[in-house]
Amino acid sequence: MKQVVLKHALTARPSAEDFVLLDVPAPACPEGGVLVRVVHLSLDPYVGSRLRGKHMGEPAPQPGLDPIPGAAVCQVVESRAEWVKPGDWVHAMEVGWREVADLPPGSFRKIDPDVAPLSAHAGVLGMPGLTAWAGMTQLAKVGQGDVVLVDAAAGPVGGTVGQIARIKGASRVIGIAGGPEKCALVTNDYGFDACIDYQQEGWEAALSAVLPQAPTVYFENVSTTMASKALVRLAPYGRMILCGLVDQYHADQPPPGLNAGLIVGKRAHVMGLVVYDFYPRWDDYVAEASAWLADGRLRYREDRVEGLAAAPALFGRLMAGANVGKAVVSVAPEQI
Amino acid sequence: MKQVVLKHALTARPSAEDFVLLDVPAPACPEGGVLVRVVHLSLDPYVGSRLRGKHMGEPAPQPGLDPIPGAAVCQVVESRAEWVKPGDWVHAMEVGWREVADLPPGSFRKIDPDVAPLSAHAGVLGMPGLTAWAGMTQLAKVGQGDVVLVDAAAGPVGGTVGQIARIKGASRVIGIAGGPEKCALVTNDYGFDACIDYQQEGWEAALSAVLPQAPTVYFENVSTTMASKALVRLAPYGRMILCGLVDQYHADQPPPGLNAGLIVGKRAHVMGLVVYDFYPRWDDYVAEASAWLADGRLRYREDRVEGLAAAPALFGRLMAGANVGKAVVSVAPEQI
Repeated sequence: MKQVVLKHALTARPSAEDFVLLDVPAPACPEGGVLVRVVHLSLDPYVGSRLRGKHMGEPAPQPGLDPIPGAAVCQVVESRAEWVKPGDWVHAMEVGWREVADLPPGSFRKIDPDVAPLSAHAGVLGMPGLTAWAGMTQLAKVGQGDVVLVDAAAGPVGGTVGQIARIKGASRVIGIAGGPEKCALVTNDYGFDACIDYQQEGWEAALSAVLPQAPTVYFENVSTTMASKALVRLAPYGRMILCGLVDQYHADQPPPGLNAGLIVGKRAHVMGLVVYDFYPRWDDYVAEASAWLADGRLRYREDRVEGLAAAPALFGRLMAGANVGKAVVSVAPEQI
Repeated sequence: MKQVVLKHALTARPSAEDFVLLDVPAPACPEGGVLVRVVHLSLDPYVGSRLRGKHMGEPAPQPGLDPIPGAAVCQVVESRAEWVKPGDWVHAMEVGWREVADLPPGSFRKIDPDVAPLSAHAGVLGMPGLTAWAGMTQLAKVGQGDVVLVDAAAGPVGGTVGQIARIKGASRVIGIAGGPEKCALVTNDYGFDACIDYQQEGWEAALSAVLPQAPTVYFENVSTTMASKALVRLAPYGRMILCGLVDQYHADQPPPGLNAGLIVGKRAHVMGLVVYDFYPRWDDYVAEASAWLADGRLRYREDRVEGLAAAPALFGRLMAGANVGKAVVSVAPEQI
């Protein structure tokens, strides 16, 4: 089978040239687990830091040996677990950039292929969507009258954050994104009230203009610097959700921290979110969100490529913030 | 009557030499309010920044004219409010360093002189105690099994924080304070499990030794720098309560902020506390805490001086962190 590995240990933000596609022997089905063919592979920003051994204490993959880490939607080929049979669909976080994967017991969940398109389980129903749901419903507890500001609003997390906020009763949802194409996605597809392009001169004044009321909720999953700016704008008693801060993944020096005096003066609640904690709620989320997908209240965009060989280039674009929509590699066709 | 004012506008942390005691005409009883004699005047750290116009947007007192701001326990001399009569006791935040004060309607609360010593309403039952109670019961929601770390533990806020945490079920309560006398107060009088003197060489290792389990709750009301150190130690899902950060009151440059990546990784909840928000709960707090005072579970220490002329020197010691116990000026005797 094909598998993508690192060419060499990384010391900087990865780019497409750091990967190589190899032919390797396919694994065997593990005791109590399943052997799967990988169909829709999710590319996610946290992998960028994990490749350097800088994510949640997880080791970097060994160059030339270990597949690049990645979550995926897969179809079972062989099962040694009683509750799963060949042909079933599963989602697992630790699959890797490869065509066939061995998933040990406890590492995967069965998914229903009929509730939504299968690739949705890599994005809006996958980890990015669960992250957004956890932030809005479990931490910020968004409700009627909230004004929600979302950074990286065109991304699969941020875009879902704003839509879930709206579904839960927020009166106004504003995004920040980089570039006109992303901003158009945020307002046209995701239905935010406005999206400000931080790459434009004068964007901070533009943001003020679309925020006549201060945001009561802020969601950040990229930039500590942007979080600091948002803290200045936050309404009294506002809630600020911080999750994977991509700018810290790649920094050798952490960026300047959050002004503690502002946290006091605003009576802010600043909350850290790690989506792992919400894996036990995944099926609950899928049940709730697939209904929103079905009735059109929740939308998503994919940036999808075909075949493992296309993964490095898409990952390079993801690392550069140049992709639009959820980065998905369709490694194999759904139907065989 | 006597009144203390600023000699001149302040540009640095105040000291005893910045104040002067003047003879001024006594005020008249305001419409709907009361005229009181000031009995126990509370000296509090926030006044240090307020004197420079750097506290919550409140204006600095005018040199030579306005009394130095201060809360106090007072006895009513004349009343134009139906629900208060001469001889009643009241507590008010905006009294000032003077012998007689005019309190407008809505600016004072009646207190029961029989639930506790009157001066307790300036400290453990006053704003410092209410701050501690709000932090532990309304924000951190301390309960069974919590390990609570408290900075400035010898102060009237910190000392009460630890005791309320213990009353509410915390399994371990650790303080940080400056100097052996303060640490002895924290462990001997306030009953903390341990108190570490941050002025001692090797104090961080000593703190580790008394914290075999990471703190689940941290309370800070002085130092952003200490809060940053505590964030490193905080247990996953820990709660950090930040209130009046004295080091920010006096800094021209705010100290370095809190590491946002640590907030994420620990899933910390960092919460700002401003005690004003809890004034509507003051009587509830006094009811609960006076029972704890009566049964000996809640203790306090005062650093009390007699007469307004002694206020500047005590305030200077408070600003230097040199006082031990709640700074109270007994302006007049309780009985006349």
